[in-house]
This record gives sequence, structure tokens and C-alpha cells, in this order.
Amino acid sequence: METQMREIGEAAKRASYSLASLSTGVKNQALQVMAKALEDRVDMILDANKQDMEAGRAKGLSGALLDRLMLTRDRIKEMAEGLRELTGLADPVGEVIKMWSRPNKLKVGKMRVPLGVIGIIYEARPNVTVDATGLCLKAGNAVILRGGSEALHSNLALANVISTAAVSAGIPEGAIQLIPTIDREAANIMMKMNEYIDVLIPRGGSGLINAVTANATVPVLKTGVGNCHIYVEEDADLDMAQRIVINAKTQRPGVCNALETLLVHEKSAVEFLPSVAEALRDKGVELRGCPRTCEIVSDCLPAAVEDWGTEYLDLILAVKVVKDLEDAVNHIHTYGTKHSEAIITNSYQKASFFVQRVDAAAVFVNASTRFTDGHQFGFGAEIGISTQKLHARGPMGLEELTTTKFIIFGDGQVRS
Amino acid sequence: METQMREIGEAAKRASYSLASLSTGVKNQALQVMAKALEDRVDMILDANKQDMEAGRAKGLSGALLDRLMLTRDRIKEMAEGLRELTGLADPVGEVIKMWSRPNKLKVGKMRVPLGVIGIIYEARPNVTVDATGLCLKAGNAVILRGGSEALHSNLALANVISTAAVSAGIPEGAIQLIPTIDREAANIMMKMNEYIDVLIPRGGSGLINAVTANATVPVLKTGVGNCHIYVEEDADLDMAQRIVINAKTQRPGVCNALETLLVHEKSAVEFLPSVAEALRDKGVELRGCPRTCEIVSDCLPAAVEDWGTEYLDLILAVKVVKDLEDAVNHIHTYGTKHSEAIITNSYQKASFFVQRVDAAAVFVNASTRFTDGHQFGFGAEIGISTQKLHARGPMGLEELTTTKFIIFGDGQVRS
Repeated sequence: METQMREIGEAAKRASYSLASLSTGVKNQALQVMAKALEDRVDMILDANKQDMEAGRAKGLSGALLDRLMLTRDRIKEMAEGLRELTGLADPVGEVIKMWSRPNKLKVGKMRVPLGVIGIIYEARPNVTVDATGLCLKAGNAVILRGGSEALHSNLALANVISTAAVSAGIPEGAIQLIPTIDREAANIMMKMNEYIDVLIPRGGSGLINAVTANATVPVLKTGVGNCHIYVEEDADLDMAQRIVINAKTQRPGVCNALETLLVHEKSAVEFLPSVAEALRDKGVELRGCPRTCEIVSDCLPAAVEDWGTEYLDLILAVKVVKDLEDAVNHIHTYGTKHSEAIITNSYQKASFFVQRVDAAAVFVNASTRFTDGHQFGFGAEIGISTQKLHARGPMGLEELTTTKFIIFGDGQVRS
Repeated sequence: METQMREIGEAAKRASYSLASLSTGVKNQALQVMAKALEDRVDMILDANKQDMEAGRAKGLSGALLDRLMLTRDRIKEMAEGLRELTGLADPVGEVIKMWSRPNKLKVGKMRVPLGVIGIIYEARPNVTVDATGLCLKAGNAVILRGGSEALHSNLALANVISTAAVSAGIPEGAIQLIPTIDREAANIMMKMNEYIDVLIPRGGSGLINAVTANATVPVLKTGVGNCHIYVEEDADLDMAQRIVINAKTQRPGVCNALETLLVHEKSAVEFLPSVAEALRDKGVELRGCPRTCEIVSDCLPAAVEDWGTEYLDLILAVKVVKDLEDAVNHIHTYGTKHSEAIITNSYQKASFFVQRVDAAAVFVNASTRFTDGHQFGFGAEIGISTQKLHARGPMGLEELTTTKFIIFGDGQVRS
């Protein structure tokens, strides 16, 4: 196993050196050929997926898991479209971010270059095989994929189709590799292949992410949970506040940038809470309130202390009346996960204070937390939303799959 | 121990929230007060250092180690000057790097903010206590220091002086803390305090750095070894090449950006090597050459394969004759540590190829590798030179001690 993994690592590293200087045209052409190959080979891919689905049913996987595992003609078409969309995005590689002159006339510049080899560890969704590969490739990286055991046949089929297509279009061999075994040892080795892998990106639930963070010695780009808050100030436009709260809680409750706790200034509570509670109830949202909330809103369940720290990912909302802005910020720092936090206010000072003080990947004034998203921010694509602070924070697009190197041009300078 | 460490972590995290919004004026004033306090308390600090020195001698520490451990009036003066110099540097916090409008009129911006709490794990040099604290503080971060056991008394004295001074100048309590024990368990707990520490920076030899990388679950900013190369092309200005090689090898051989292996195009070898070998020998450099080098240079020792991978940090140089540019780049990718690599050439194409292809933190054309340094690049200060690719690569200044957050200004936008 060690030997096989080392071979995979070496091949990826070798490929990464030539990938780094491929032109945008070659990469885009490869993405087109890969998309076409997916569509051409759809029957073969569906056959492979059928094996996984049957094994999954036999193993008694849940309906939700089976749904994530399942491929259809439409889903494969979507993956192909995703690859084609990447061709329209700017290539981050080669950009010289800045360049300056030193007193000794050395020219020092900072150039964007690929990270090198990216390892992706993921769970049951076979679409990650294609989506993550496309993003890594467009940013000039080789990729080593390690998918969930339930999806092995699907992943093998997909990886085979796209890597063969890529090579035929001029991408070096070894640039796209899937680990062809479900042996857990392979993942453990992968997490410590510092020599060959420059960064690991776990894609999946918090169990997977925590396991990778705990065991990897390779640096990890970590996406995380979102226990997001909206704080409604005493001077807020309450109609706007209600529209934003409803949107952030109900437009898609199962995602990390959905609202989980509503904080309301005590002076707005009596006017705001009954109305927003009714609107939320109409959308099927269960409320869990602090004692003051329960006084104001009839039939609100009392919140337990765990509620403040819970990412429900469901039609449930915790509600708390707070004394003031500072109280709200303290609550967010105590229970938040530094993902997306919003204030609704008409006060310039309060908006500034909130933006300044709240420590989170995305801090909003008068807008829904649901906008924390690579597409919504205009990045065109997204590999995930980072809640860590190193390298990348918030939605990660192509730029976050690159690093920089210093380039220094001299005419004989030596150091004295 | 767990409890004590948690208290330290909590205090640092709490301090970090108010530190993040301190004005540059307050931070600079605190740096001045800290510098003055070091000078005022020099006798007390020297007394504490004497205890460490006596214990060190009794334990039989090497002369080099004792020298690193020793404080003098001049060295304390230097630390104070270092803090004062930081007041002249631009404060990175609060800079909005870019801001753009979305079609729905959301304004999305990326603002530079402190990392939060930085953990520094270091060895015998007590000056790190002051230098690292100054850098962290100027970038708005709280710091938790864990120094080497040999320097405990010195570090306690230094940390006490600067933290007391800082608090008197308006820095929050908890912003500067030293772990007051030599128990190894403290360091192990620190490496896993993901809840309180945002990033760990090990400062010291590769043993320390590897131990932290292997054990930490907190993200690590890693500095590394430099097995640096200079490649002399067939068309190089050989006088320039010789000046640069001599400088890179001998100006300060014990540092990570010093030259370790010289690569020479086979067409330049006969002309270049005898002359550069003589100049190097005059400076006391021992040469270890490939077979072809040994043919050209009399009394050159034969290089073993280990020589290509060795960071000598000494007056020793490995020398290899290569077939061409591609051969040179392959050698660098096989044996290099991705630190600093240089080409000496007059060819535009060859310079471009080298800059494009070589995967390293700093790639030079016609200049000495010794310039890979925060001060030489114009950053004004440096916490180390990163050889990893995430977050920061190459010399790390104040900017690298920050992260960003997205700030989003709306007027009621919801997601559809």
C-alpha cells in the first residue's frame, strides 16, 4: 500500500511541474474534452453507479445517502456543464500581484502559481470527483482523489473518463488520479504524504473534516459549520429585518450559511417578534426562545443552553432578546462558528462597530447571510467555504487554489 | 495543567477581540513603552538570565547554545530598538484590499484583520520572546509564548516586563502571555488548543518544526530548511556569476538562504569552475563535486549522493556539471527544498523558463539567494521564511500575521 501510494504521489508531483506552465488555452480545451467525454460515456457511468446503488441498498444505506450517491443523466449533464463553465473564468496562474523596486534596483514581484498537488478526501457524492477535479485543473494543480467507499465504482468510472479525456487533450499523465481502493489505510497514508501533497481538502460532514484535521500532517484547507446569527438593532427597518430573517432561515435551511439564531434588541422585541414569529410559523419554522422571547411570543418553546450552539440545518430557529449591540456581539463570539453574521440597522455607528468587532468569515449589514457563497460573491466557482483563518477565509474560488512565489530580477546584486 | 492552559487560552481569546480594533496609535505607543521598560529593567532581566546561564553551564550545554541563551546590555538594547522600529511600519489591520459591486447592488469587500491568537513555540533564544511579541502585537494579535526550558527565567522576566508595560499603555490583559512552566505536557496541550489558538509558529531548528507539524491540530505557519541552488547557464556573465556565488556561499554561510549546491552548464564548466573554485578556496570553502567537476577542479572531493540533499549551513559547497537548463531544473526539483533558487544567464528565454518552472518560495535571476529576507524585500520586519505553500510563502512580515474577512453592505437584499 505504501508503495502504491508513493507511486501515485510521485506521478502527481511530476505532473504538477508541467501543469504549472500549461497555457490557459490548453487547460480550457481539456475541460471541454472532459465535459464531452462525460456525456459520451454516460451509459458506462450509469452502469457503474448502479453497482454502487445496489450495494448501498443491500447495506441498508439511508434514503438521504442513497440520494447523494445516485447518478442520473441530468446529474451527469450538470457535471459536464460545470466543467464548461470553468472555461469562462479567469485563469489565476501567472498573475503578478505586485512588483516593486528596491533601493539596490532589485525588482521583487509576487506571482500567483498553482499549489501543486491537491488531495481531496470526500464522502458519498460522486459529483465531487468531477467538480473538484475541474477546479484544481483550471488552477493548474494535479489532484489525488479519495472518495467514499460506497461510491467506488462510480468514482472509478468518472475518474477514468475525465482523466483519459484530459490526457488526450494535452494534460500530463498523473494529473488526475483516484485512489482505487477502499482500504482505510490509503487515506491515512495520504494524510501524511507531505512530500507529495501540498494541501488536503476534506469535502463532507464535520466528522470527516475533524478526522482529517486531527490526523493530517499535510496542511488542510478546512470548511466548517455555520451557526449564523442575525442581530436586529433597535433602529432597524423592521420590514427589511423580517424579509431578511425569513430569507436567511427558510430559503434553504439545510446549508451552512442559513440563519440559526435571531438576536433582537430589547427595545425592538415587542414590536418585531410577534410579527416575525407569525411569518416564520407560516413557513413551518419552530421557534426556541429565551425567557423574554417566550413572554412576548405565545407558544414559543423555551430554548435550552445547547440551542445557542446548535447548527440546526433545519426549520428551527433559536431566538434571544439582548440588551444591546455589545451583548449581541458577545453572544456571537461565545456561540458563533465564525462563518456568517449579520446586523440589521440604520445606524452608521452601529454598522461600523459590528463590522469591526465581529470575528467571522463574512460580516453583513442589511443583507441575508445566504449570500456567503462563491457564486454570489462573483467568484464564478467555489470549492467550499473556509472557516479557518490561514490561507483562505470564506468562499474559496480558483484563487484560493493557488499560492505565490517571489520572483526577483537583478543585474548582479550581492548582499553586503 | 489542562485548566491552567484553558485559562491562558481564554484570556488570550478575550484580549484578541479588543486588540483587533485598537488604533495604530495605541499599539505604537505600547511598543514604545515596552521598549523603554526593557531598558529600565535591564538589571533585573540580566539577573534572571544569569540563573539560566548558570543552570545551563551546570547542565553542560554547548558553547553555541549558551551563546544563544546569553543576554547582554547590548542584546537587550537591540530588542528594545526592534520594538521601536515596528512603530515605523504600516499597520496592516483594517486595510480593505478590494471591494466590488454585485449586480444586486451588494457591496462585497475583503478587509485585512488580525489572525486572533498566535502561539509561538521556540527554543533557547530569549530575544524571540520580545521580537515575536512585537510583531504579533503590531498586527493586532494576542500571543501565547512557549519558550525553551533552558531560558525559562529569562523569558519570564522579559515577558513580565513587556506585558506589564503593554497593559499600562492600554493593551488588554491577556494579550501577551508566557506559559510559566517547563512541563512538556503544556506544549502538547497548546498544539491542540484549536478553540483558542488560531495559528502556531514554531521558531527554531528542524527538529522543533517537525515535532510541531506532526503533533499540532492547530494550523501551523512553518519555516523550513533551505537547500539553495545557483545555476550558471552557458551564456552567463561569468564574472557576475562568480561574484554572486561567492556572496551566496560565504557572506553568511549559517543561514537558510545561503547557497548549498552550484550547478554549472557543461559548456561553461571548463572556463568557470577553476576560477570560482580558487576564489571559494580562498574563502575557506570545501568543494564536493560530481565526477566531471573533479576532473576539472584539482583537489575537489567527490560528492556522495547525500551531498545533493544536504543543507550544510557551513563553508562547504556541492558542485555539479549539468547538461542543460532542463537538467538543472530537474536536479533542483529532486533535491531542493523549495526555498531560494537562482539562475545566472543573459538569455531572456532561459530566465523566463527558470522563473516559470522552478517551484520555490523565491526564484532569482542574476542575484544572490541571500536576498530572501523580509528586510531585503522591503517588509521592514520578518517573523520567518515560510517554505510551505498555504497562507504565506517566503519571507513573512506583518501582513502574513493577518487574515481577511469579507464585509458585505446591503440595503435589504435577500437571496432568491
